[in-house]
Amino acid sequence: MEVEAKFKVDNLSEIEERMGNAEFVIEKVEEDAYFNHPCRDFRETDEALRIRRDIEGIKITYKGKKIDPETKTREEIKIKVDDFDKAFKLFEKLGFTLAGWVKKKRKIYRYGEALICLDHIEDLGSFVEIEIESDDVEKAKEKIFEIAEKLGLSREKIIRASYLEMLRDVADTR
Amino acid sequence: MEVEAKFKVDNLSEIEERMGNAEFVIEKVEEDAYFNHPCRDFRETDEALRIRRDIEGIKITYKGKKIDPETKTREEIKIKVDDFDKAFKLFEKLGFTLAGWVKKKRKIYRYGEALICLDHIEDLGSFVEIEIESDDVEKAKEKIFEIAEKLGLSREKIIRASYLEMLRDVADTR
Repeated sequence: MEVEAKFKVDNLSEIEERMGNAEFVIEKVEEDAYFNHPCRDFRETDEALRIRRDIEGIKITYKGKKIDPETKTREEIKIKVDDFDKAFKLFEKLGFTLAGWVKKKRKIYRYGEALICLDHIEDLGSFVEIEIESDDVEKAKEKIFEIAEKLGLSREKIIRASYLEMLRDVADTR
Repeated sequence: MEVEAKFKVDNLSEIEERMGNAEFVIEKVEEDAYFNHPCRDFRETDEALRIRRDIEGIKITYKGKKIDPETKTREEIKIKVDDFDKAFKLFEKLGFTLAGWVKKKRKIYRYGEALICLDHIEDLGSFVEIEIESDDVEKAKEKIFEIAEKLGLSREKIIRASYLEMLRDVADTR
């Protein structure tokens, strides 16, 4: 289970200054292609399927529907693949349709068992994601909110929408 | 494009004796899980989706419908993945259903640009597949039939059914 909370922030460097002894992991550009299902609407079922390309490689990720009212906690299945274009074509051949692209610059820190992602999303702005992989959702949530408090991120700034959904909303209001 | 012809044989060693200067590549056990699509019937559309596990690794393969009346020629998209069980679960989550398993012992030889596979399929028997990856289907077919003739495989012994379909027929008549 991926237990995850996302916060809108104005200034990523402010957050970074409060990170204390968090350990820097990597800074990278992530390019995600999201797909919709050939016979069910992922916007309604709250699922997601994406192919991600970054400096570390290529991954296909399936995300189940969110199971917690506050966070973005959900089942996640991730597999590494060797070729982005072929994976893209495979899903197209299976009838999946491109739902959109999300491009971000992401800086990842490790803090205990949590990962803290400082994200800058193209056309959206800056966000912080704190995530823990665990099957004990309540315990993981508690830890996530402890870290969030330490970083000055209040529970009111939490966002459950995905970057893809937010980008869609931006496009709709243009 | 994968241009491929399959022949039923009684005795694989007889074929092997006629292989002359074909170069031995590998002998392995292949375990394939085939899936059906959540909203179209691959038996009707003549497509295939499988995950294969063997000593060389794990691959997801999509096969388009056969485009040649005689051979098994069809579009093929292949990606390498890092985890069989996760790939299996991913397709299940996407609504694909297991259509069946095919288990075979396969000995592969290279003969020029062709691959010759000597297959022993669990519950089915022995077969030879000759395949060339090429977009010039007619030229590739010509070469494949030249090789087949050399191996004593007559055009009448050609089979277009997949191992999965043949296994299904065997199960139906039991």
